Amino acid sequence: MSGVVKTSISPMLPVRRGIEAIEFYKAAFGAWEVFSAGDENNGVVAHMSVGGAEFWIADEAPDFLNFSPESLSAEFRSGATVRMVMVVEDPDAMFARAVAAGAEAVWPVEDKDYGWRVGRLVDPFGHHWEIGKPLK
Amino acid sequence: MSGVVKTSISPMLPVRRGIEAIEFYKAAFGAWEVFSAGDENNGVVAHMSVGGAEFWIADEAPDFLNFSPESLSAEFRSGATVRMVMVVEDPDAMFARAVAAGAEAVWPVEDKDYGWRVGRLVDPFGHHWEIGKPLK
Repeated sequence: MSGVVKTSISPMLPVRRGIEAIEFYKAAFGAWEVFSAGDENNGVVAHMSVGGAEFWIADEAPDFLNFSPESLSAEFRSGATVRMVMVVEDPDAMFARAVAAGAEAVWPVEDKDYGWRVGRLVDPFGHHWEIGKPLK
Repeated sequence: MSGVVKTSISPMLPVRRGIEAIEFYKAAFGAWEVFSAGDENNGVVAHMSVGGAEFWIADEAPDFLNFSPESLSAEFRSGATVRMVMVVEDPDAMFARAVAAGAEAVWPVEDKDYGWRVGRLVDPFGHHWEIGKPLK
């Protein structure tokens, strides 16, 4: 049917240092900007894509109930309430690239008894990512 | 190319009362379970779909750095660090359905000057959703 919107769910990640975050996700995941607006003074919002999978970044705005992990917890690794499950063809390579760009491994990429090869990292803005794929 | 995994990014939502959450998201969004495992005693994990758009729910596990919004903030509306942007053909209907199922409107569905018709709600587990679509 023409004109019908395809249903999608994409995570919106509030961060401190939005412009730095855009550059980090480009380096870490090979992400690119589908769209971005704003500047360092007024805050940025950016629509990002990784191989066609989309997410959003925005400078946090607590007055609008948009809190970065750094605002909700003094513990760097313990401030996120949603983690992103990223499925890619080569999780080992993506994980290594992200760590090289400044992410911290929470646990390494390994085969899990629930049938996935997956690792978890926390990025410099406090957001958590599981990077993996189902085992054949 | 055969055998190549399609890249995807799906949010994983830690909650308290996981079994109740599965039922809530079914009622609120018309979601269905692609897969689920576990039970009330050991915690549940569920892979959910809304019109082909996917997300995950799991009982929180703070020992594994999986915190629900209720664990990170005493303020019900202020505990989430990622919000989900849900794009659907009829955001007004989806929003009304979710509120009828027990979600709370943060702001109503309305036309925004940035070119979207969108509203925001917080669900009974503290997760925030923007439900909308781009204006023509």
